[in-house]
Amino acid sequence: MNNELATLSWPAVEKRISQKTIIIPVGSTEQHGPNGLIGTDHLIAGALAKALGDETGILVAPTMAYGMSHHHLAFPGTASLRPETLIMMTTDIISSFARNGFSRFFFVNGHGGNVSSMSAAFSQILTDSPNLRIQLASWWLLPEVTAREKEVFGSENGFHATCGEVAVTWYLFPQAQTPIAPGVAPDPKTEWPVGPERFRMLYPDGRMGSNPALSTGEIGAELFAIAKAALVTKLSDFLKMDQSGV
Amino acid sequence: MNNELATLSWPAVEKRISQKTIIIPVGSTEQHGPNGLIGTDHLIAGALAKALGDETGILVAPTMAYGMSHHHLAFPGTASLRPETLIMMTTDIISSFARNGFSRFFFVNGHGGNVSSMSAAFSQILTDSPNLRIQLASWWLLPEVTAREKEVFGSENGFHATCGEVAVTWYLFPQAQTPIAPGVAPDPKTEWPVGPERFRMLYPDGRMGSNPALSTGEIGAELFAIAKAALVTKLSDFLKMDQSGV
Amino acid sequence: MNNELATLSWPAVEKRISQKTIIIPVGSTEQHGPNGLIGTDHLIAGALAKALGDETGILVAPTMAYGMSHHHLAFPGTASLRPETLIMMTTDIISSFARNGFSRFFFVNGHGGNVSSMSAAFSQILTDSPNLRIQLASWWLLPEVTAREKEVFGSENGFHATCGEVAVTWYLFPQAQTPIAPGVAPDPKTEWPVGPERFRMLYPDGRMGSNPALSTGEIGAELFAIAKAALVTKLSDFLKMDQSGV
Amino acid sequence: MNNELATLSWPAVEKRISQKTIIIPVGSTEQHGPNGLIGTDHLIAGALAKALGDETGILVAPTMAYGMSHHHLAFPGTASLRPETLIMMTTDIISSFARNGFSRFFFVNGHGGNVSSMSAAFSQILTDSPNLRIQLASWWLLPEVTAREKEVFGSENGFHATCGEVAVTWYLFPQAQTPIAPGVAPDPKTEWPVGPERFRMLYPDGRMGSNPALSTGEIGAELFAIAKAALVTKLSDFLKMDQSGV
Amino acid sequence: MNNELATLSWPAVEKRISQKTIIIPVGSTEQHGPNGLIGTDHLIAGALAKALGDETGILVAPTMAYGMSHHHLAFPGTASLRPETLIMMTTDIISSFARNGFSRFFFVNGHGGNVSSMSAAFSQILTDSPNLRIQLASWWLLPEVTAREKEVFGSENGFHATCGEVAVTWYLFPQAQTPIAPGVAPDPKTEWPVGPERFRMLYPDGRMGSNPALSTGEIGAELFAIAKAALVTKLSDFLKMDQSGV
Amino acid sequence: MNNELATLSWPAVEKRISQKTIIIPVGSTEQHGPNGLIGTDHLIAGALAKALGDETGILVAPTMAYGMSHHHLAFPGTASLRPETLIMMTTDIISSFARNGFSRFFFVNGHGGNVSSMSAAFSQILTDSPNLRIQLASWWLLPEVTAREKEVFGSENGFHATCGEVAVTWYLFPQAQTPIAPGVAPDPKTEWPVGPERFRMLYPDGRMGSNPALSTGEIGAELFAIAKAALVTKLSDFLKMDQSGV
Repeated sequence: MNNELATLSWPAVEKRISQKTIIIPVGSTEQHGPNGLIGTDHLIAGALAKALGDETGILVAPTMAYGMSHHHLAFPGTASLRPETLIMMTTDIISSFARNGFSRFFFVNGHGGNVSSMSAAFSQILTDSPNLRIQLASWWLLPEVTAREKEVFGSENGFHATCGEVAVTWYLFPQAQTPIAPGVAPDPKTEWPVGPERFRMLYPDGRMGSNPALSTGEIGAELFAIAKAALVTKLSDFLKMDQSGV
Repeated sequence: MNNELATLSWPAVEKRISQKTIIIPVGSTEQHGPNGLIGTDHLIAGALAKALGDETGILVAPTMAYGMSHHHLAFPGTASLRPETLIMMTTDIISSFARNGFSRFFFVNGHGGNVSSMSAAFSQILTDSPNLRIQLASWWLLPEVTAREKEVFGSENGFHATCGEVAVTWYLFPQAQTPIAPGVAPDPKTEWPVGPERFRMLYPDGRMGSNPALSTGEIGAELFAIAKAALVTKLSDFLKMDQSGV
Repeated sequence: MNNELATLSWPAVEKRISQKTIIIPVGSTEQHGPNGLIGTDHLIAGALAKALGDETGILVAPTMAYGMSHHHLAFPGTASLRPETLIMMTTDIISSFARNGFSRFFFVNGHGGNVSSMSAAFSQILTDSPNLRIQLASWWLLPEVTAREKEVFGSENGFHATCGEVAVTWYLFPQAQTPIAPGVAPDPKTEWPVGPERFRMLYPDGRMGSNPALSTGEIGAELFAIAKAALVTKLSDFLKMDQSGV
Repeated sequence: MNNELATLSWPAVEKRISQKTIIIPVGSTEQHGPNGLIGTDHLIAGALAKALGDETGILVAPTMAYGMSHHHLAFPGTASLRPETLIMMTTDIISSFARNGFSRFFFVNGHGGNVSSMSAAFSQILTDSPNLRIQLASWWLLPEVTAREKEVFGSENGFHATCGEVAVTWYLFPQAQTPIAPGVAPDPKTEWPVGPERFRMLYPDGRMGSNPALSTGEIGAELFAIAKAALVTKLSDFLKMDQSGV
Repeated sequence: MNNELATLSWPAVEKRISQKTIIIPVGSTEQHGPNGLIGTDHLIAGALAKALGDETGILVAPTMAYGMSHHHLAFPGTASLRPETLIMMTTDIISSFARNGFSRFFFVNGHGGNVSSMSAAFSQILTDSPNLRIQLASWWLLPEVTAREKEVFGSENGFHATCGEVAVTWYLFPQAQTPIAPGVAPDPKTEWPVGPERFRMLYPDGRMGSNPALSTGEIGAELFAIAKAALVTKLSDFLKMDQSGV
Repeated sequence: MNNELATLSWPAVEKRISQKTIIIPVGSTEQHGPNGLIGTDHLIAGALAKALGDETGILVAPTMAYGMSHHHLAFPGTASLRPETLIMMTTDIISSFARNGFSRFFFVNGHGGNVSSMSAAFSQILTDSPNLRIQLASWWLLPEVTAREKEVFGSENGFHATCGEVAVTWYLFPQAQTPIAPGVAPDPKTEWPVGPERFRMLYPDGRMGSNPALSTGEIGAELFAIAKAALVTKLSDFLKMDQSGV
């Protein structure tokens, strides 16, 4: 069964509107180190959302490919939404789908920088529309994922352009692999938050403490499977939530 | 050569920053009649942008998959941005890429409803940043495309969920084809603009005057090729524009 | 009978509130070439709205004299609203009149640059208030007007500071006539959209491809009468629209 | 000499740009009692601005005909901008004219409800653009005007739809005169601010403590002349202000 | 009895929710001349609100310590909200308390610069929520206060960093007293409004026409008592207002 | 030495402007369980900021007493800013102080709900003003504090209206202590985020998994001292940050 909203017609969606639930992948368009892909966050979120939809039969909306990525703006190819733009975009998408029949929104998130604006948006949306249910699932923060990453990469996983996310992209886009010299990127950690130019000064090749030379498609495939299984559980719990009353 | 920003690393983008130019596909997530795909507009824009990038060697940014689609909101699966959201999103993406090295923005547009907000955004952006160059190319309005559509479909092409756009999606996604009984959808044309519920009352199955039973993958392939060729010419003209001075 | 809202008292308006309809002229304050009037767009819109009101007995609201005119900002005397300002202003005026009894809004528009923001505003307003009816009538795009302009001026009518609009102002404000040497202004047409300074570089005297030396008060009077008659028909059709249900 | 921006061409404005100064009338579209005109505020502001321009040779911009009139919204024919809309509109108009050569802005105001939002806007604008000079002159608050109104009308002048403003409109629009039974409108004064419906409950015919039966075109003409003379002095003082440095 | 919201628990507030009324102090963080306190406006508003709450048994919300103070921004230690920020903040606080049970809002204001934005906000709020009641009481404008200030300080009270407000802070914060040489500050009064740097040029030490050498804690205590008594009366009148119907 | 901005004059601030640094306390006005204080978050942040200023000689700005508290809005006495309001307020305060001489901003935060909007604001501010330095220190997340809370309260500390924060308020406001029956509040943890009414349904007395019967002024005093010492270290590290270049 096809679960992608984009390649369905509206009558096909209407037949499944009693599910009330929609999965929405969200990521970013930002540098991911010397060999990581600029689309890493939205490509992984999109692929996981698709896998989650196929496993559960829940509809998957088109990916929100742009997120909040200010501190990466000094690297060519990065684009960032302002906080208010991401808040408004999130609000519009939820209220649109709510108008035509959905009430449970499960976001599969690929980017840490989105969490602040999207959480802020959710607080407001639930205040204005108490009958909705919303959940933000950031795949790399799922305990099952972080546990396995720790076993495989230890402290060399890093904090941006991590071994884990690079590995998943090698699994998804094997043709995009680029070799990189081994070595852990600097991670001064003395300052946060920082602006775009200062970020590039502190983290010259864009990575934060990671060693993506350790990334392989094989471990990427494994991490993807772990994340997918954990998301299936999380979505299943979400669907059990009481939706009567407020 | 890979021209998709999403699957490139930032050093790969930096090597090509002297091109100064980026192609950005933009579409919508809205109903397209009884058998048209909800993602029609962004799927076609994305595919044409990719083809255009591959033909010209110009970089292609991730697709803006959500647009302004208010009057379709009564159909399940449609999501619409408010005008100010689309204006802000367009502004953020342009100013971000401008900050890290791009100055020419060529939008491949798949959705008529985006034109008003994006044109408004461009006016403001060029007033604030006079050194930028921006162009919005709506594929279905290219004279070469409309001429061929007229030959093939005549007046049955319609105005929404047209034979032409449905045909292109059958070419791009042959597995998504759904048969439909022949017949031209109503097109009262007595009122415009209209709100979501009224739109559905006037256009009950979502089409406006079209007969997508005429659509085939073959004619879709032909229209796609015509559009691609016309876009190559249009982009080529755009690149010849003077960018010295203001 | 006086049909101008501005010179009526509220009890006089209340007596006619069952008409439900209000005409709102909207224009711009922007350069119109070497001898065209800065107020061309709002002066014509205001005059046509008044004539339309007098012909039909429908109330006419005060003119929105400022519009979206970014690319003319390098010429002294031009003022432009930002897109969000025009959207908000349009929304406020409609929702105000809707609160005190009107539900049908017929805008007589004198300026092409307003169309994008106002159309965007209408989409949002009708989504939020489905019971309203709105129409934007741009006088120079009425088929009857363009047909006659083509006969009289041919291709020398141009695209900004056109022979037609200059002629109408000579009719309305004979004392404001200024002679101009014959000749068609340049119209490179190679770029669009453009910013303010670049517009002035490409179109040094502010006209786009027009030859206003052809304009006379006589043809202006004729065009005005044609536009008025076409607007009467258009408004009449608008009033016949079903306003029951959504 | 013609001093109205609307009926001048841009070259005519450019010749006078060294004056640096522009007069901008601003009013409202709101009920003014049982026989006062809905356009009272913007019609008087526009007429005074024109007279001021003609006396001083300073250019006069088109009238901002809509202002902030929330508490009158329960009376048919009133339209109100939101505070942020009026702030944005004021900001846009000033920054536009500043971009093409003006630096001194003299607003002739006809409506008390505009003062809060416009003053707020000016604070922000002068913080962002310290080289500009701005003044808001509310005609009915000019000491010369209030003194004469007190002599003629005493306490029956009232606070909204005052004898004075009604008189000026009878002078400007003699054909719009409507008789009214003598008597002072109620003015409970126990509450402020109030919302639209409550305002109409407290002030059933829209007046606040005024007796417009006392208004005549003759006294209107006198008040108009007094206001004009006072504005000429005020503008003259404004032009003497130091504009060197910040 | 404790009347400060900040040091109460929600069950304690719930017991008193039938009062429906809340006092909200609002001030600024801005320079107040060579020896006046930067917090003058919010410290006095907070102290008066507390005294008013203790006298009447009405709850007092936390102080809004930041206001609109643009023209003081060239003096170290001043912070200013933009008009839209203050409007939004006022709106949020009122609508929040309205959601959990309050309907009468009595603001004790210590800063003239807040009046424009807050009045604008109130107009909008009452239009959207007609059942609420709102009052803004600016302590230094209470007739009882101005009368006594005139007796004591005459024209040397000035217009910013007045003798009166400095005196009240000496009463409230005796340890913060700093001697100042006698003398009246300049008050050219030739220009208004002005931007930050120009304000500092015209009013070099931050005062406007005042002589705070006249301020003492004793007169401050007296003024505070006068203001408190006048506020008690004003609040009492406010509570008598009809709140039935709209 | 007095380090509170509110009780200093601007010349006193100017003498210390070479420090470049300002401490800004930020909290909330929201329910904190059956006996916790509504002002808990801003009262603690304000007290810690004052102690930090006194220990380090760095200036302390007035407290931002209102924060983002949407899910508590169903409890009387809670007020919440919208995300965009808190973002704008944070931006205005930082840019104001930056205009008159500060460049390092150290926020002492008392409320978890503020983190998302304030972090979003900081990202944007540092993108627009790369020379600034900003840090957000949430006192209850300092490792030294959480370690001691774990020792004393174990799992009964909870997640809202925690034993730790209640204890600190008992230390700061001994007169506000209210006894409470021992017992751990429910913490279903099955849903997040939730709207206001649903929050109250899930957490009927406002606590989340805490047992504030364990709170005493003594342990509050100890936690306050621990937090203060940790903040001194954190601020000291912040001041060592390189501020040359971007």
